[in-house]
Amino acid sequence: MFKAIVGASTLQDALDSVSVLVDECKIRLNDEELSIRAVDPANVGMVDLTLEAAAFESYEADGGVIGVNLARLEDIAGMANSGDLIHLELNEETRKLHIEIDGLSYTLALIDPDSIRQEPDIPDLDLASEIVVEGAQINRGITAADMVSDHIRLRVDETDEAFFIEAEGDTDDVDLRLAREDLIALTAGPADSLFSLDYLKDMNKAIPSDAEVTIELGEEFPVKLHYGFAEGLGHVTFMLAPRIQSD
Amino acid sequence: MFKAIVGASTLQDALDSVSVLVDECKIRLNDEELSIRAVDPANVGMVDLTLEAAAFESYEADGGVIGVNLARLEDIAGMANSGDLIHLELNEETRKLHIEIDGLSYTLALIDPDSIRQEPDIPDLDLASEIVVEGAQINRGITAADMVSDHIRLRVDETDEAFFIEAEGDTDDVDLRLAREDLIALTAGPADSLFSLDYLKDMNKAIPSDAEVTIELGEEFPVKLHYGFAEGLGHVTFMLAPRIQSD
Amino acid sequence: MFKAIVGASTLQDALDSVSVLVDECKIRLNDEELSIRAVDPANVGMVDLTLEAAAFESYEADGGVIGVNLARLEDIAGMANSGDLIHLELNEETRKLHIEIDGLSYTLALIDPDSIRQEPDIPDLDLASEIVVEGAQINRGITAADMVSDHIRLRVDETDEAFFIEAEGDTDDVDLRLAREDLIALTAGPADSLFSLDYLKDMNKAIPSDAEVTIELGEEFPVKLHYGFAEGLGHVTFMLAPRIQSD
Repeated sequence: MFKAIVGASTLQDALDSVSVLVDECKIRLNDEELSIRAVDPANVGMVDLTLEAAAFESYEADGGVIGVNLARLEDIAGMANSGDLIHLELNEETRKLHIEIDGLSYTLALIDPDSIRQEPDIPDLDLASEIVVEGAQINRGITAADMVSDHIRLRVDETDEAFFIEAEGDTDDVDLRLAREDLIALTAGPADSLFSLDYLKDMNKAIPSDAEVTIELGEEFPVKLHYGFAEGLGHVTFMLAPRIQSD
Repeated sequence: MFKAIVGASTLQDALDSVSVLVDECKIRLNDEELSIRAVDPANVGMVDLTLEAAAFESYEADGGVIGVNLARLEDIAGMANSGDLIHLELNEETRKLHIEIDGLSYTLALIDPDSIRQEPDIPDLDLASEIVVEGAQINRGITAADMVSDHIRLRVDETDEAFFIEAEGDTDDVDLRLAREDLIALTAGPADSLFSLDYLKDMNKAIPSDAEVTIELGEEFPVKLHYGFAEGLGHVTFMLAPRIQSD
Repeated sequence: MFKAIVGASTLQDALDSVSVLVDECKIRLNDEELSIRAVDPANVGMVDLTLEAAAFESYEADGGVIGVNLARLEDIAGMANSGDLIHLELNEETRKLHIEIDGLSYTLALIDPDSIRQEPDIPDLDLASEIVVEGAQINRGITAADMVSDHIRLRVDETDEAFFIEAEGDTDDVDLRLAREDLIALTAGPADSLFSLDYLKDMNKAIPSDAEVTIELGEEFPVKLHYGFAEGLGHVTFMLAPRIQSD
């Protein structure tokens, strides 16, 4: 059983954060929250999303799992204006999701959850640095890095007490230095890892420019990015595997 | 003889409603009004447009017919700012139309009207339902239907006193229900017809979102859509042939 | 030695006026001003740009010459918001230009100036007509001419005291007449020349619509277009060779 009413922009933000990595996903309709975990086909980027029951106007669920085509569901949610409410109701018999937006009904055929790539386990990592920064700054670093390379290096300089987003191209280099005063918070420890820019660009698309993003970073370790949405009742964690540094 | 001055947006709105169906058309320059009738190459969609002399700043005509390339004429009208006046004058000798917009003169070669597809007769139909609805609602129904199918079903439920825009896809369905209170007016009678979505999408492009659109609908019959523009001095009627329902 | 700080929009405007003609250029870093002269590969269009030291927040230079990839430099300048300051500093040893925008550093590899097409001499011409007109009017004439032809004729009618932008297509003609009252100033003399529209379209892209553009025009002679930017501390001259008139 699943029946819920949710603000259009809350649903849109939730779907965006997953659709940047995968085309289809399982949605777990738990008692207390809706949750999604997914990993991209290359096993490089993962996302873990939860949206608490309190983020909905109304929410009833009992632990079922549905499989959805994300692009399709995003298109439907995109029919709503930002103030609109979206009604969702699962028909257990037909395995279809009924979606209603101000008189407009959409009946969405679901995907067999067993046919969808397995949900990843997102490991607990003990990463030495924690950087809290505005989404807009991450966007700036990624956009600049993209001019010169397809890799991006994230590192913390403990002495300088600064976070660096860097990229080294064949001829040109880019380097965004965010000192303690440019950041919301900084716990500096040994942290220096290289990542594929393509994945970070995709994740960046989902991160609102005014979000407070917490970055957990280690030495040649995966990076984790956390941010909230829906007034703190929605939570996203991205995890991205590092590239081996060749120097 | 034809000599007229018209506001840019009035001319643009008039041309838009015809250019969604055909590339060239005949324009009848009557005493009391300018009028255009046209049918698409497949004989499925028709348009009948009239623009009264009073919609012009000045208007003189004596019943001639000219043939025009609509895209070209739209491009020229698009050079005007919304408050600009467009001067039109036919040179009978050269068979060219002189267009002037604030110092800018354009001499447009006309097309031999005899080389243009014959103007259709738009039949008088006695259709059982009449629905008056905002252009924005039609747009909403068409956009949603387009996600799942290339056909669209329009119908009136007499008991429910509601107008339905529906589409049935291979797996997903769409259904916009507009009850009496969502409509400007409703005369309910037996009405249920299926149409090609492509044509309705084209017609929809020309319909202003704030226009009051009158829809005349029957059972497996053509649909007529009427709306006004230029403060009621311009009138458009679209007619679209039905598809045979296969069930 | 070169070290300067400049407002983002000043640098962007300067680069735009050159990049419409060439992909790479030499920048002369003189004592009193930064200057660029360039000619397109076909030797048809030339640009001469100067930006006075006073247009910068700070400026130190001693006459060096650097070669730059314009698209790359424009992308970097485009990372700045309009109020941002851009710091530029030449590293003489590495022959790289360091660019800094609010914490973001970009190290740009320069191009050997000797590998860049030689700077043109822009001849002093004694052209009989001088027309001063708003950039927006030039844009209007060029946009309309582009509908019918790839050539454009600029001429002054001395008797009529008007400047004409004209184009003759296979079937349609365009003619923008700007009388003395539509112009900022007019010195009328014999002037009538034909130009390639593609080049004027490119130059037009760089001309701000509110710029006062001085056009120097003769009979089958090159045209010169001058305008200022950066509150009069930046100066652009475009020169375009004529096409032979075939009539």
